[in-house]
Amino acid sequence: MTTERLKRQIEFIIEVDKIKQIYRKNFVIGSERHETDAEHSWHLAIMAMLLAEHVTSQQVDVLKVLKMVLIHDIVEIDAGDTYCFDQQAGLDKDERETKAADRLFGLLPDDQAQEFRSLWEEFEQRVSPEACLADALDRLQPLLLHYHTQGKSWQLNNITSNKVKERNKRTAAIATELGRLVDEVIQDSIKKGYLTE
Amino acid sequence: MTTERLKRQIEFIIEVDKIKQIYRKNFVIGSERHETDAEHSWHLAIMAMLLAEHVTSQQVDVLKVLKMVLIHDIVEIDAGDTYCFDQQAGLDKDERETKAADRLFGLLPDDQAQEFRSLWEEFEQRVSPEACLADALDRLQPLLLHYHTQGKSWQLNNITSNKVKERNKRTAAIATELGRLVDEVIQDSIKKGYLTE
Ligand SMILES: [Ca+2]
Repeated sequence: MTTERLKRQIEFIIEVDKIKQIYRKNFVIGSERHETDAEHSWHLAIMAMLLAEHVTSQQVDVLKVLKMVLIHDIVEIDAGDTYCFDQQAGLDKDERETKAADRLFGLLPDDQAQEFRSLWEEFEQRVSPEACLADALDRLQPLLLHYHTQGKSWQLNNITSNKVKERNKRTAAIATELGRLVDEVIQDSIKKGYLTE
Repeated sequence: MTTERLKRQIEFIIEVDKIKQIYRKNFVIGSERHETDAEHSWHLAIMAMLLAEHVTSQQVDVLKVLKMVLIHDIVEIDAGDTYCFDQQAGLDKDERETKAADRLFGLLPDDQAQEFRSLWEEFEQRVSPEACLADALDRLQPLLLHYHTQGKSWQLNNITSNKVKERNKRTAAIATELGRLVDEVIQDSIKKGYLTE
């Protein structure tokens, strides 16, 4: 017989399969399909492995960044994907996500529930270099996908360059080089007509 | 201007978006859709975070396991998903995947190309506890998904319990408790008629 602890771990692992059915606003490159939260989280993890070195003037704990990006959207299983430019939906986002965190992380053995919960809170509050990097990647990844899908989702949702700049404004502070990349991608998106000024 | 190094990193990050279009044999739970390699890799990473503690009689480096499962299927962008029960396709799998690794990891700056390449080789060769755990999870995850989709993909592909047992036979050696779980899931799948004996 498997232990109660393993049972709870497996129950959580099965429950979070649902993240594969949470679709985001952006598209997969070269496809008509929207990206899922699981795919997005995987992509952030790859980015973290490669780009953590660009964090300016401090070392980051890559293991922590990976854990953070891997779990950061699990709450959306209950709370749904709140489109970052939807002000209305943003109003009760915190409440919905906190309830989701209670239920979902609560499936785990207590120590692991606590670990996941505090990783998620740290990410949300951006209180550490790891959280700031995770947050910057969470904004850079859709920017790159929008750029490589000719701004299709920006156009469908009437997003202008000011909004995109605002959304990525903190990146330069955590990683100068990534901030430069953000500027270049936005400028080129405007130039190519993917994004209106 | 962004550096040449960052340009190569971003080129790789964009290229691997294609893993979201590599579909596996198994289904997402509660869906008619096949799982993508990106989703599968994300799921393995969550499992690694939670289940690494079950590795028997040695400590594993969780960061290494995470990196390994996150990148283990990137070669399938060029080589395709080789169905584990397809003996014919298995014949030239190594050759196809080695070529894919050359091209894909070769997009990265040399040091990172080398890191990803050796992580992938270590995974393939199962020469460390980290690789053995990653490999066991890579077999356990589809087993769990098959079980929770009533064995639909097993039936569609005429897979019998012997093949599933064979495929998961190494798990007990790396983690006794996970080996027990494998046995229970297979037994219950037979009992429920998901899998033929
Ligand atoms: Ca594979």
